[in-house]
Amino acid sequence: MSERISRRKLFGLGAAGVAAAGAGVIALRAGEEEHAPTAAHVAAAGGAVPFYGEHQAGIITPAQDRLHFVSFDVITDKKAELDELMQEWTAAAARMTQGKEAGTFGAVGGLPEAPPDDTGEALGLPASGLTLTVGFGASLFDDRFGLASRRPAALAPLPKFPGDALLPEISGGDICVQACAHDPQVAVHAVRNLARIGFGRVSVRWSQLGFGRTSSTSRAQATPRNLMGFKDGTNNLKLEDEALLAEQLWVAPGDGQDWMTGGSYLVTRKIRMMVETWDRAPLDEQQQIFGRDKGEGAPLGRKAEFDPLDFAAKDATGQPLIKADAHVRLAHPSNNGNAHLLRRGYNYVDGSDGLGRLDAGLFFMAYQRDPRRQFVPVQLSLARNDALNEYIKHVSSGLFACPGGVRDAGDYWGRALLT
Amino acid sequence: MSERISRRKLFGLGAAGVAAAGAGVIALRAGEEEHAPTAAHVAAAGGAVPFYGEHQAGIITPAQDRLHFVSFDVITDKKAELDELMQEWTAAAARMTQGKEAGTFGAVGGLPEAPPDDTGEALGLPASGLTLTVGFGASLFDDRFGLASRRPAALAPLPKFPGDALLPEISGGDICVQACAHDPQVAVHAVRNLARIGFGRVSVRWSQLGFGRTSSTSRAQATPRNLMGFKDGTNNLKLEDEALLAEQLWVAPGDGQDWMTGGSYLVTRKIRMMVETWDRAPLDEQQQIFGRDKGEGAPLGRKAEFDPLDFAAKDATGQPLIKADAHVRLAHPSNNGNAHLLRRGYNYVDGSDGLGRLDAGLFFMAYQRDPRRQFVPVQLSLARNDALNEYIKHVSSGLFACPGGVRDAGDYWGRALLT
Repeated sequence: MSERISRRKLFGLGAAGVAAAGAGVIALRAGEEEHAPTAAHVAAAGGAVPFYGEHQAGIITPAQDRLHFVSFDVITDKKAELDELMQEWTAAAARMTQGKEAGTFGAVGGLPEAPPDDTGEALGLPASGLTLTVGFGASLFDDRFGLASRRPAALAPLPKFPGDALLPEISGGDICVQACAHDPQVAVHAVRNLARIGFGRVSVRWSQLGFGRTSSTSRAQATPRNLMGFKDGTNNLKLEDEALLAEQLWVAPGDGQDWMTGGSYLVTRKIRMMVETWDRAPLDEQQQIFGRDKGEGAPLGRKAEFDPLDFAAKDATGQPLIKADAHVRLAHPSNNGNAHLLRRGYNYVDGSDGLGRLDAGLFFMAYQRDPRRQFVPVQLSLARNDALNEYIKHVSSGLFACPGGVRDAGDYWGRALLT
Repeated sequence: MSERISRRKLFGLGAAGVAAAGAGVIALRAGEEEHAPTAAHVAAAGGAVPFYGEHQAGIITPAQDRLHFVSFDVITDKKAELDELMQEWTAAAARMTQGKEAGTFGAVGGLPEAPPDDTGEALGLPASGLTLTVGFGASLFDDRFGLASRRPAALAPLPKFPGDALLPEISGGDICVQACAHDPQVAVHAVRNLARIGFGRVSVRWSQLGFGRTSSTSRAQATPRNLMGFKDGTNNLKLEDEALLAEQLWVAPGDGQDWMTGGSYLVTRKIRMMVETWDRAPLDEQQQIFGRDKGEGAPLGRKAEFDPLDFAAKDATGQPLIKADAHVRLAHPSNNGNAHLLRRGYNYVDGSDGLGRLDAGLFFMAYQRDPRRQFVPVQLSLARNDALNEYIKHVSSGLFACPGGVRDAGDYWGRALLT
């Protein structure tokens, strides 16, 4: 059987896609998925984000609403099998991000006596802005694949921060894939098919679903709220900050390992929030802790969300309007050697914890040029002094080197590293 | 401080709402939330579903895309406190389903020295079709509140089904709330605020998030797919089936306990899918197991999804086209004394299981007039013979009596039971 049908051609804009977008979906015309999508396409619920490019998609792509993040352990010790897997994954990712099935047969086709080359649950759904972004953990650079000499210095293990309560079984991993989409079923489908393709070569180490993106990565997006009810990421690095992106986000030639040029380092932290305790804290205390007001998101003493932060401002009694241990002060670039992060986190609720509490919080993700000069000093400052620490606990941590983009159909994830 | 601002008036249609619906959101005009929404409103991403009525919303309401289901244990033994809680919950639910904050102060207001009367994470988001549906478990009718004589016979414990692998810590519970919305942040916000309001009187026993509704409850909705990749719920009971709803869904006067008139019984089953094993099963085997083809969802031997099922049809060799142990045959009303269910389940992924597999499946929910004549015989038939059993495991179970609707602002959840 040849490639008889593409997902979208066969099914049009299906049920779940329509429902996800309410009544306002802009249906794509037949065949439209063949062309490079414009920004307007991507903004539409069904839009596809280009897969090929200088940088991987899913970093400065305007943050989609839903996340399925997965970390794999490599279980083969043959470098050739790892290399082959990356080629197979890249081909599947190039297809799935464009709204097609993972495999080439179409409509769960293939030989009836063989397993389908797509699991099927995204049939009929549009591309939904899906991006798939790959990263390599420090453990991949051990002695299994002869990659020790290719390990970037910036991939140095994160220090143990005060208060860390990390669970190793949901931390680290050899390879991560960040799947972001406007429809969770599309993100889940992508991760699940990569896991299926990787059978016998990789094993799922941990995975995390998220919703309600907690940062904007474009000035065209309004600032969303975290599960403490505050706007989050007002001063995030954004795709419009071109000079800052070059300085703070993308790995440049000469930074170290050439294979990372055009890439970025991803730090993940699963931050459990003690929401029940937080919900009993007075509004005033909550606002002092963040240094912003809860409704509008304005710096304390100011009116509007994007009013500049003035850390020298004092109240009538001479006390700083934004306290010394306020989150916004400790995290600010001006207090961390001008370290910016491109944050791309998501809220999560993983059910309840068996002790009568919701298991909820923030799955923090931040991209940067060098964690040693960016995430590490910021987090050290926060972990030591942040008034918020009473209400949060870091339970998972990851650090991944995400290489530059896949240039074309002849290229693949990790080629520059593995060959 | 009085009720100065409603959530939507203050913020308009906020960031996450816009993003959730892609570029196609139909913004509501200022003040529009004051009027009863039309069907077109509800279909729009921001629409509000009416809270008051003969039946609870969230049962025949066209299935929204996202779920946060929660089961509470009551931890007070004072009936008056339980009664008071239900009044407080009802008032908050009436507000939140209309896109307002849980409390009456607005924009996380109130006294600065007091905790906010809303947790804030849904500020700026539209109502998003939120429905909140309450149900009472059999355990509420023990000797704590003097309700033993009010327990409906239809709330009899479900039998132990062959193959059940139920975990008590994520089963049962005194009171459930089903929160459905088009935006998971809105559903999570609602559950979280009910838990906050219930502090000291109820404790979260378990909770479950879901996405990608796996059944339609209206003929206006296309049939979505479960995580086995098959269309699910093609022949579901739907809101247009008025005679069947009266016969099969709603509790009628004379059915038993008067307080349940206009209500319905909800069965929940968390059904873990062994997706990695399933993904290695041949397409033909998958289709034989369901009795439908995977791409289109047509009964085997037919062309289109809604073609009638013909269980007598045979292939050229004289074998039944739909096998004796096919899921669709065993579950069909014609093989279960005409028992229909209104299914309203959701797909779930709860990360991974620590054994290299995704923890994924179906959170099955079904409403019905009497589980003894509906869910129980259907599930006995499936549990004994369904070819699908090789790939699934029931890990959680719940049965809840969901009373009729809250009639007006003077009524509240459970009033007819508790007074």
